[in-house]
Order: sequence, then structure tokens, then C-alpha cells
Amino acid sequence: MKAVVYKGPYEVAVENVPDPRIEGPLDAVIRITSANICGSDLHPYEGRVEFESGMVFGHENMGIVEEVGAGVDRIKVGDRVSVPFNLACGTCRNCNQGFTSACLRANPSGQPGAGFGYPAMGPYWGGQAELLRVPWADFNLLKLPEGTEHELDYTMLSDIFPTGYHGTEMAKVAPGKTVAVFGAGPVGLMAAHSAYLRGAAQVFVVDHQKDRLALAEKYGATSVDAGEVDVVEAIMDATGGFGVDSGVEAVGYQAHDPAGNEHPALVMDNLVSVVRATGAIGVVGVYNPVDPDAATEEAKDGRIAFDFGTAFTKGLSIGTGQCPVKAYNRELRDLITQGRATPGDIVSHELPLDDAVRGFDQFDKRVDGWTKVVLHPSH
Amino acid sequence: MKAVVYKGPYEVAVENVPDPRIEGPLDAVIRITSANICGSDLHPYEGRVEFESGMVFGHENMGIVEEVGAGVDRIKVGDRVSVPFNLACGTCRNCNQGFTSACLRANPSGQPGAGFGYPAMGPYWGGQAELLRVPWADFNLLKLPEGTEHELDYTMLSDIFPTGYHGTEMAKVAPGKTVAVFGAGPVGLMAAHSAYLRGAAQVFVVDHQKDRLALAEKYGATSVDAGEVDVVEAIMDATGGFGVDSGVEAVGYQAHDPAGNEHPALVMDNLVSVVRATGAIGVVGVYNPVDPDAATEEAKDGRIAFDFGTAFTKGLSIGTGQCPVKAYNRELRDLITQGRATPGDIVSHELPLDDAVRGFDQFDKRVDGWTKVVLHPSH
Amino acid sequence: MKAVVYKGPYEVAVENVPDPRIEGPLDAVIRITSANICGSDLHPYEGRVEFESGMVFGHENMGIVEEVGAGVDRIKVGDRVSVPFNLACGTCRNCNQGFTSACLRANPSGQPGAGFGYPAMGPYWGGQAELLRVPWADFNLLKLPEGTEHELDYTMLSDIFPTGYHGTEMAKVAPGKTVAVFGAGPVGLMAAHSAYLRGAAQVFVVDHQKDRLALAEKYGATSVDAGEVDVVEAIMDATGGFGVDSGVEAVGYQAHDPAGNEHPALVMDNLVSVVRATGAIGVVGVYNPVDPDAATEEAKDGRIAFDFGTAFTKGLSIGTGQCPVKAYNRELRDLITQGRATPGDIVSHELPLDDAVRGFDQFDKRVDGWTKVVLHPSH
Amino acid sequence: MKAVVYKGPYEVAVENVPDPRIEGPLDAVIRITSANICGSDLHPYEGRVEFESGMVFGHENMGIVEEVGAGVDRIKVGDRVSVPFNLACGTCRNCNQGFTSACLRANPSGQPGAGFGYPAMGPYWGGQAELLRVPWADFNLLKLPEGTEHELDYTMLSDIFPTGYHGTEMAKVAPGKTVAVFGAGPVGLMAAHSAYLRGAAQVFVVDHQKDRLALAEKYGATSVDAGEVDVVEAIMDATGGFGVDSGVEAVGYQAHDPAGNEHPALVMDNLVSVVRATGAIGVVGVYNPVDPDAATEEAKDGRIAFDFGTAFTKGLSIGTGQCPVKAYNRELRDLITQGRATPGDIVSHELPLDDAVRGFDQFDKRVDGWTKVVLHPSH
Repeated sequence: MKAVVYKGPYEVAVENVPDPRIEGPLDAVIRITSANICGSDLHPYEGRVEFESGMVFGHENMGIVEEVGAGVDRIKVGDRVSVPFNLACGTCRNCNQGFTSACLRANPSGQPGAGFGYPAMGPYWGGQAELLRVPWADFNLLKLPEGTEHELDYTMLSDIFPTGYHGTEMAKVAPGKTVAVFGAGPVGLMAAHSAYLRGAAQVFVVDHQKDRLALAEKYGATSVDAGEVDVVEAIMDATGGFGVDSGVEAVGYQAHDPAGNEHPALVMDNLVSVVRATGAIGVVGVYNPVDPDAATEEAKDGRIAFDFGTAFTKGLSIGTGQCPVKAYNRELRDLITQGRATPGDIVSHELPLDDAVRGFDQFDKRVDGWTKVVLHPSH
Repeated sequence: MKAVVYKGPYEVAVENVPDPRIEGPLDAVIRITSANICGSDLHPYEGRVEFESGMVFGHENMGIVEEVGAGVDRIKVGDRVSVPFNLACGTCRNCNQGFTSACLRANPSGQPGAGFGYPAMGPYWGGQAELLRVPWADFNLLKLPEGTEHELDYTMLSDIFPTGYHGTEMAKVAPGKTVAVFGAGPVGLMAAHSAYLRGAAQVFVVDHQKDRLALAEKYGATSVDAGEVDVVEAIMDATGGFGVDSGVEAVGYQAHDPAGNEHPALVMDNLVSVVRATGAIGVVGVYNPVDPDAATEEAKDGRIAFDFGTAFTKGLSIGTGQCPVKAYNRELRDLITQGRATPGDIVSHELPLDDAVRGFDQFDKRVDGWTKVVLHPSH
Repeated sequence: MKAVVYKGPYEVAVENVPDPRIEGPLDAVIRITSANICGSDLHPYEGRVEFESGMVFGHENMGIVEEVGAGVDRIKVGDRVSVPFNLACGTCRNCNQGFTSACLRANPSGQPGAGFGYPAMGPYWGGQAELLRVPWADFNLLKLPEGTEHELDYTMLSDIFPTGYHGTEMAKVAPGKTVAVFGAGPVGLMAAHSAYLRGAAQVFVVDHQKDRLALAEKYGATSVDAGEVDVVEAIMDATGGFGVDSGVEAVGYQAHDPAGNEHPALVMDNLVSVVRATGAIGVVGVYNPVDPDAATEEAKDGRIAFDFGTAFTKGLSIGTGQCPVKAYNRELRDLITQGRATPGDIVSHELPLDDAVRGFDQFDKRVDGWTKVVLHPSH
Repeated sequence: MKAVVYKGPYEVAVENVPDPRIEGPLDAVIRITSANICGSDLHPYEGRVEFESGMVFGHENMGIVEEVGAGVDRIKVGDRVSVPFNLACGTCRNCNQGFTSACLRANPSGQPGAGFGYPAMGPYWGGQAELLRVPWADFNLLKLPEGTEHELDYTMLSDIFPTGYHGTEMAKVAPGKTVAVFGAGPVGLMAAHSAYLRGAAQVFVVDHQKDRLALAEKYGATSVDAGEVDVVEAIMDATGGFGVDSGVEAVGYQAHDPAGNEHPALVMDNLVSVVRATGAIGVVGVYNPVDPDAATEEAKDGRIAFDFGTAFTKGLSIGTGQCPVKAYNRELRDLITQGRATPGDIVSHELPLDDAVRGFDQFDKRVDGWTKVVLHPSH
């Protein structure tokens, strides 16, 4: 089959690789209809995070079940399914408690948490390919309504829609609350959309890219252009000096000013400033324990020197980490099916698999208008 | 009346000051029977935090109601009451939501949160004195069973017992969970006691002072002597390499190694190491936005460069801040009354008010056996 | 002043009564701009529940603060405010825990829970009048944006909007869930509106009055006409035989079939049938301990013989009781202010106080199109 | 193998039946070391609930893994395990949300919820036998420390300890709360034990059998002898007229007075009376949709005419249903391992499998001192 293969920094290729096949009784093989390029794919793409040459990319996957193992009886061949980016065994202690993002058995390295086509998440090939093997298929796969409707919406269920939603969950967004989302990339936009789905009264979205801010406004948010205003001042003014109830960090370790200079603590500091005393922050932007190219010595070891003293004085709570997709994807699917959620509105480009190289290149360069790329290996 | 008055770094005095009196219709005046010296009293005492000369110390107070204002009708003269260290109006937005620790109206500075006899918490005199004025008395005061029974237990309800409990609440301690408490000072001991009251299966308490560790064991905890073992290794070994479900930070900004050298990120780093992936940390040890005497340049501005990258990778949640005492003191009182909680077991010294100077001195020097001092201005 | 006074079954009058005045330091007097007639006003109006002759009606009140007592300092003269229907002291054990609906001190009868102008809720005159006295004003009153905007929306904050919302809270409505609301009276409509504000994927509303069902559809709900279809069958079919996650009871003890015959267990039985195994039911329709005119002997003593055996087998949870308005009204206010909630859409008639008699009569007869009546004593 | 087989009302026999064997890749076969007789076994034993002749009894099972299917890789041969009474697939919507008690796939009848050796829970043989087949073994089985220690405590993890705990969860028992448990049978005793493990301040246990009340006191509870005092009056007096925060129903549909006459609503009515306004009731005593031998016509159809009017007026919440054992058994196991929980203290008789007939007979007759029977098929 054809697949997007990692070759080295800034180099991917669409190549022929062996077809995946059923390896155990709980496996399924999926024919991929949509596989998105994720912002976090750019971390290894840019060489910022180590990735094994030859690995197949892709953790935002959906498709049609092609084959199932002998022990699979919930999922059937022909089912249209979404594949959560985090792969989980379904029977360990963390899976039992809903923390599929920290499955204790799926990652052979022994580190909690596994996934597809992504550094440090185990040996599992990704889905930017014609076919994808999914272990523990009955546990992991989410059934979708048959047909082809809402393809661009449902394809967001594998990662960024639940991930944005997870940010709002950790930030304790609830009806009538005010929210500040930092970062208007795909995850930040999904956080803004999710915040309104959860009943937020007002959502601010901070970024300095105008195409992304325009999308945020399409979801009903109030945009705050970091290139034009003092972000903290703008949000404090707009909330009568009180601040917002909830903050979402959707930027991560590469936080930088509009001039492009990285300041690892910048977004956390801003969040500590704009979130009200006793408020909550949800961090879904990625921070890494090791980041050799970081802007400060401390940040190379994962140390982010943000204003913890003020956080304590305000009594803030901070939730962090990868989204356990299964905790949310069923309900988000139903919102799409009922026409109440439209995460696919952020898609700017649909490409055949053969165009993946161009997709990575343009998305990585943040070319204006390239907000989200969906690959269609099989259609 | 006589009161403990702040004169300057390392200098307090027991002096005559004017009696407090009813100033508004919602005030009460309390005759203090017990007022404890708190570890956080040592912050201004040591000059580490600015405090106004002439202020009366004391935010851990209980006593008998002496007089009430015209609008007080729940609390009666003669009631035996505990006074939460955080003073709250009872009618603002934060009080409405139970965040009495961040009352929006009680502190004339406009900063959320007020209290008695403590820097930056407003102009309210403390209770290391014969009498104490308590505004919004009907809202703030907790009634205790009449008489003198359980005095040393009930006196812990004003601050450290709820504060330790708050740490376990933010750390999501629940039946069958494992817990690591860093710091075996009075708050850490109360956290350990609280963890068991909430049903913890096992509680580790880390410190390097043997008298304190002995008290931790008295509450059923497993002591970890930081002066003798590698703390992280010891806890990981004792949990089969899994780590603990919950961690409580009961040390604060002056975290130091057994040799006495401060490392502002030390305790947070250890917690990030020993708390399991997806676990929770409750921070009740105090961190300040400004700390001119801190060990690092960043920490002088409240910046604590702990390993946030690993915290994110593990998906930890971190709750911080002062305890809203009213959220817990009623239930903790009832546990004392029923004989199920014995927070007073940590008291090492009961002194008359006149001995307060010696109490501060010995407690500040962490003289062996001086774990908790209770002053009895009126008995 | 003029006020709507209860004279006896089916008889109210607009009469001159003495002006209320400040009686204690925590009182305020409000000049009423809007006072709604509530469905539960019809219980005493119809003589089904005992009410004292001479009492002033009205527990859905808003207006402008006219005067405040000496101890009131949060609320100011001139503030535009909403008055929660349940009156609460703000300092008792239940108020401390947010259960203002069960205040232990406000009702002189000693029964938990007090309110305005309503049987068994204490001696407090209602607000279908020019002026209203509100005790514990700082605690009870909710400030509204000044001016006259959104008057019909904000006036729903005193009772039915929070009450409908409370039904969805007890029914555990959350993003992506399906909901069945029984009863399309004002409270049921607010429950449907609230369910969508909380992110429900689909909301069914059951009634047999077409004007009300039309309003339900206006809020986005799927109407189920009990006069035309088998309600249980219709909902089970629409959910693929699975049932709904959440059910809201917004009918109460006078549940009847389309022919008008009362069956006290009818709505609860239907809810037990249509709510999925492990689902939740929120009961905001009123059931009374004593109901001499009930259709069955048991129901006269408050006994409702619904299918508890099936409820147990399905593992359902059932929340009941009056709404603690303060738990929700601030956030719902902010949703109105931001234009995201429009509870006032249900108002069919705005009348001057002098027309109150006609308002009661037409609303009680459920004359087509009389869905909700708002009186404007002062405008 | 030998097994306890149901023959008809009041008739069980220990007979030879075919050995169970691995039927699918996810099965395990367990050699049973302990299998308890449950109070709910008496429902079919007494002929009150229909049961298929020839079925093997037993849903409270633990033992050693004898053999596993090809797809089982978490559980190993030789593991000592507890078998939750509810059997669950681990991959359906309800299992995903932790409701293993309402698994949508395990019961071929299509009704949510499956189990071992119990009417209406599917075709699965029970474990009062030498061997037991457990489908979905990796998901269902809980590993225990190897060896034979705490056998009588761990054997309570399959049902009654989690079931009693579930009652306290639904009743919202929390630190410092007061609790009333109705029924001092094994489940009620486990509820009392659980309530204290969760930090309750005081637990009342109501029954009229003195041997059971003595066990309740052993767990620290205050016994209330229904044969000697007015239960409601006794509890109200002991709580200063306030009532208890939480109530647990551990009796079920056969509620009867000390004279033995059944009153289906008796226990629910008492709970509605003694639980404080805004309190919570957890119902783990079984109520059935069909009960042909019930004392009232309504109760034959599962209708329990309890005082719902008062429940509404007090704003009570009521949780019901079978316990999802996996939600609690890991943490309860750890409490046993750490010596903090001792559920096995209720065991009065340990019998070899051959004595099962006598065990059923004596336990069913509630012979004094026969509080809990454990069979040991293999030891």
C-alpha cells in the first residue's frame, strides 16, 4: 500500500510499504478514508522531537473496517469508524478508569500511553496510508453512521475535537462561564467550539494569525490579536477587570511572541494573569520533558518557569495532558450527527494521499489559509 | 487587652492594646480561649514577607462570643466558636460559590481573600490576644459544642486541619488511594490525618525532622526520612514502581534540602516524579508572587521552574491555593465530636499568652519537640 | 400600594395594601418592574393547596432597589435586581452548602425552605405588587445590567429558568446527551432550552397542548404530542430502542391524560420507561405530601405508586425538589446578557398590574396562546 | 466437577456436572477457592423469583486461574483473582462509561446487565462449583496478592463489599456525614463498614435481628433495634431532630415489620423520614418489576407507593440499582491488603461445597448466628 513515510527532518515521502494485516485475535484493519495532518506531526517533521526513519505518519484516522480478528465481535467488517489517536488495551487499571491516554499495556516501552504513527507512542504505524491495523479493535473503534455524510466533521473525532474539548473539561468550562483560549490553531479552534457547546457565555481566542482568528469568530468567539493589542490588558478590560473563569492552553512548548522568538513560559504566564482567582486552566498544548532546541536552559529539561507564586495566590487549578479520546468521542459524534457541532469547518484543504508532501510543507510554513489539511487515501 | 504585637523581624511582644469593639451591625467580639502559632506566622516573623509593625498576630483562633452587633441573629453571646482564618463577606460571587478564601469584598486592598493578623490579608487584627473582632459573624463563625472538651482538637479547625484536608481534596484523595505528603509540619500532618479520614489505603509522609515523622506514624502514615533515603526511589519502590495516586505539597516556597539549602522547585519536582500518570497534586504549601530573599532570580518573581514537561506527559493535575475553611470545618468538627478525628495530637506546647515570645522563638528555630504551639489567652 | 391579593379559590383581587418597609438592617425594598404569574400560583388559586386569605401573590419578581437597611452594603439603591423565589438567610448550614431552597432559618414554621407569596413558604408577601420587601438583601439579590434591556428574559431568572435548568442538572444533562422533558409548560420549556445550553444533542418535549409544543420546537426541541402518539413508543423509536440519557419531570402531581383524568404516577412511569438503564431523572414538577383532592387514596398522602421495581432494575437515579435559584442565576444571567439564552421567548402576555385578575383567569384555563403572563407593576 | 445445582423452590443439590471449558479466545476458567451464599440467592431459592432448574448457583466467586483463551494476555494461569458478580463485555457504551452492571452485550436476552448463576442475568453458570468459566477474562478479573492471606476478606470483593459501598456512593456519604443504613444483613453491614471507610462521622444501622446488630456495632455503628424502638423517632432524636445526611436501603422488596408482615414501602418511607432535606438515599436492596407474591396488588407490578410527596418537598435524591463492581473493587482490595478494611469479619460459617445444602437451609431460615456462609470448593 501507499503511505506517508518519515525520512528525516523536513522530509516525508509517499512510498509503497507492506500492507498491515491481522496479527492477533483482537485486531482490525481499516481502509482509511480520511487522515488529517496534525499540528503535533510538525514536531517530528521539524526535527524538534526524535522520530524513527521509516515510520508511517498519522494519528488522526477514520475509515471502513476491512477485516477483523477472531476475537472481534462488536465491530463488523464494513463499519465506518473513527480511530482514537491514543491506542489502549481496555483492560488495565488506567483504561478501567477512563484514562485511555495513559494505557499501561499498549506501549511496549512501558511508558503510559500509546498511539499511532507518533514519537514515543510505540511501534504502531500511522494512518496516513491506505490501510491501518488497530489492535483491541472492539475497545478502540467508534462506530459512525454509515455513508459519507459529515466526513470532514467526523474525521475530527480522532484527535483535535476531543482534544480541544478536553482542554475545556480540565478548564472546568460550564454554562455561563467566560473562557480564554490561547492559540487559534486547530486545537484552539476546537476548544473554542467546545466551550460554546458546553454553554460558555463568552469565549476569547488569542493568536496573531488573522486567518485563524477569522475562523475563531466564525465559531462565535471574540478574537484577540496578539500582534495588535496587549493580550492580558484586552481580556481584563473586556471582563471588567475580573478575568475569565477558564483558560485553555492550546499552544505548547513553542510559545513565541509575534516576532517569532520563543518564550517557554509566555502562554502560561498570560493564563495565570487573565484567569480569575479560583479559576481553572486546561493545558492541551504539548510540553515535553526533553527539548534540546528550547530557548532556555531550563526548558531543555522541560522546566517552565512560569509565575507559580501568583497561581498559588489566586488559587488556580491546572489540568494537563493528552486527551483520553474515548471519554468524549461518542457524545461529540452525536452532536455532529444532530447538526449541532461542525468541527469540519476548519478544514482548508482536502488532498489525495499523493499530495501529502505538499500538505506537510504548506501547513508547516503556516501559509496563509492552510489551517487544516485532510488527506483522503481512499474515497 | 493584651496581645501579641509584631515589632519587626524576629521581634514580637506581648503588649497592651485597645480592646476591639463592635464596629458594624454584623460584627461579633470573641474572647479567645485558644490561638495557635502557625507556620505561616513565621514568614513575617522571619522578615521574609512584609508585615506592618504594630499589627496583632494570629489567624488560628477560637473562643467564646462576648458581644454581637444588631444584625447578628444566628450566633449568640456565650457560643463557643471556631473562627476560620479567612474572613469572608458571605454575599459576593466567590463566597456564593464557596470560595471564601477569595472573598471579593473583605479585603480593602481589592485583592481577593482576607484574613486576620496576616500580611496582605487586610487590616484585621489577629487573635493572639484576649479579644478578637469578627466581621460578618453569622456567616464566618462555626459553632462548637459547649464546654471545654476537645479544645486542642477544635482549635485546629480554624486553619491547619481544613488546610491539610484541602490539600487532599485538591489531590483527589479517595478510598483505597495511595498518597504522598511532602512536609511533616503541622499542615502536612493534618493532610496525612485527612487522607486516612478520606479512606486512603496508604499515606507516605516525607520530611527530615524525626520528631515530626514520629507524629506522622502516630497517624498511621509510612514515614520517609529525606535525610536518610532517596525520597523518589523510596516511594517508587514502595508502590511497585507505579507511584502514588495523589500528592500533597505542604512545604512551600522555602523548600530546602536536609543541609538547609533552598531549591524552590525541589518539592514540586519530587511530586511530579512520584505521582502516577493521570494523578493529582494538591499544593497547600505557600508560594508567593514576590520573594526578594529567594534562592534563584526567577523565584524572586514567583517563578518556580519545575518539570512541567514531565507533568504534562504524565497528564497530572495541580490544584493550588489557600483553603476555604468553611468548605470543610463543619464536617471536620463533627468527626472530632464523634471521636473519629484527633488533630490536636500534634500539639506539643500549650502556653499562656505571656509566653508567646518564647513560643515564636522555639517554634521558629524548629527546636526538637516543638511541633505545634497553642496559646491560651483566656481559659 | 396596589397588590394582587388572594381572597379564596379562583378569586384574586388587585387592592390597596400597606407599603412594605425596611424592618431590619439586612432588608431591602424593591420597586417591582416585572412579576410573572407562575404555574404553581395556580395550585392555591385553584384551591388545591391551602393559602391564607389576604396574602399578596407573586414569587417571580424583579425590579429596582428603592431602599436598603443599615447593614446592606453590597446592593445599592437604584440597582436593577432579580429576586430569587426562594428566600434564604445565607448563613445556615444548608445555605452554606448552596441549598438555599432549604434554608433552615428563613421560614418561621421551622420547615426548611422559605419564599415569597406562596403557601407554606413563610409570611413573606409576594411581588405582584408595586413594592416588595426582601430580607437578607445582600445575599439574595442578583444584580442585573442597568437599563431596561432584556426585561422579559431577566424576569425568568427569579424562578422558571433556573428551575428548568435545575431539572437538567439533576437529570445529569451533558454535552451530546439525549433528553426527554415531560411537560411543555413554562418550566418544561425552560428545561428544554437549558438542555441545549448544556450541550444536549437532542431534546424531546412531551405535551398535548399544541401552542406549547410549538414553543418547544422554537427552542430546537423535537415535540412529542401525547394526544396523538404513544409517548413511550415514539421516544424509544426515535432513539433506536435505547431510550434517552436524561429525563425531566416538569408536570407534577396533577399529571393527567389528554382527556384530563389524573394519574399521579403517569409521568414518572413514562420517564422510567424512556430513560436508558443507568440514566437519570430530574423532578421539578411539584409533588406534595398532602393532596386531599388527589385521584387516588395513596396520592392524597403523597404516595405515588410508580414503577420503582423497573427503576431499580435499570439502575436509575432520581433527583427531586425545588431549585436553589442562586446556584444558577448568575450564569444564566450572563448567557442572557451575551445573547445566548432567550428565556423570554415564552412570554405571551404583558399586562399592567390592574389586569392581573384576567391574567390568572386566562392562564389557569390554559386558553390557547396564554403560555406565560408577565405583570408590570412599575415600568 | 461438583456444583450446587438449583432443583426447585427450597431445593438445591450438590451434583456432578460437566466441567466448564474455554469456549472463546477471551475466556478463562477459574478453580474456585471461595464462593459465598448471597442473600439474593435466597430469592430464587424461596421461589420468589423464577430460576431455571439445573442452573449452577453462585455469583460471589474467587479462585485461581486454571486456563486462559488465546486472546487473554493480562491475566495469567495461576493468578489469584476475584470475579465480579456482574459479567461485562468491556467494550459497549455502558461498559465504556463504567456501568458494567448494565453491559449491553453480555446478556443474550438483550436486557442490560449480565451475571453468573442468577435469574435473568444470562446463561452463565455460577461459581458454587469447583470450576467457573469467565468470559472477557482480561476485563472482568481482578488480580489479588498471591497466597491465601485475607481469603475471607477478598471473597467479599465479588459482590457485597462493593455493593454496600455502592449504596454509600449513591447516598453521597462523605467525610463528617451522618448515615442511616436500613438492614443489617451482609450488604447493610458492608454499607456501614464502607460509610466509615469514607469518613462518616456516625452511622446508624437498623434491623431487628440482634446477631446482625452486634456485628454492626463491631464495625463502629450505632445499632437501632426495630423490634424495640420507633426507628424514625430514635434516629431523629439522636441527630437533634435534623436527620441524617445519607440513607442506604439494604433490605429490598421483602421489607417487613418485626412480626414478619411485608410492607413494600416501609423502608423507603422510613428513609424519606430520617434523611435530612437535600439529603441522598442509595438503594441497593433489590426491587423487582414483577413480584407475584408481593403483599399489595401494586407491588406485584413493581409499584412501591412510598411518600414521594415528602421526598420532593425535602428535595431528596435517590440512586438505585445493582453495583458496577469494577468501579470499586480495586480500591477496596487495596484497603484490605493494607489492613484498613475487614469485610470478612461478618463470616459466620465456612463450609465445604458438600455442605452447601445445609448452608442454604440455615441461612435462609436466618438461624441465629448464620450471618454469612462461605463455601470452599477447592482449598
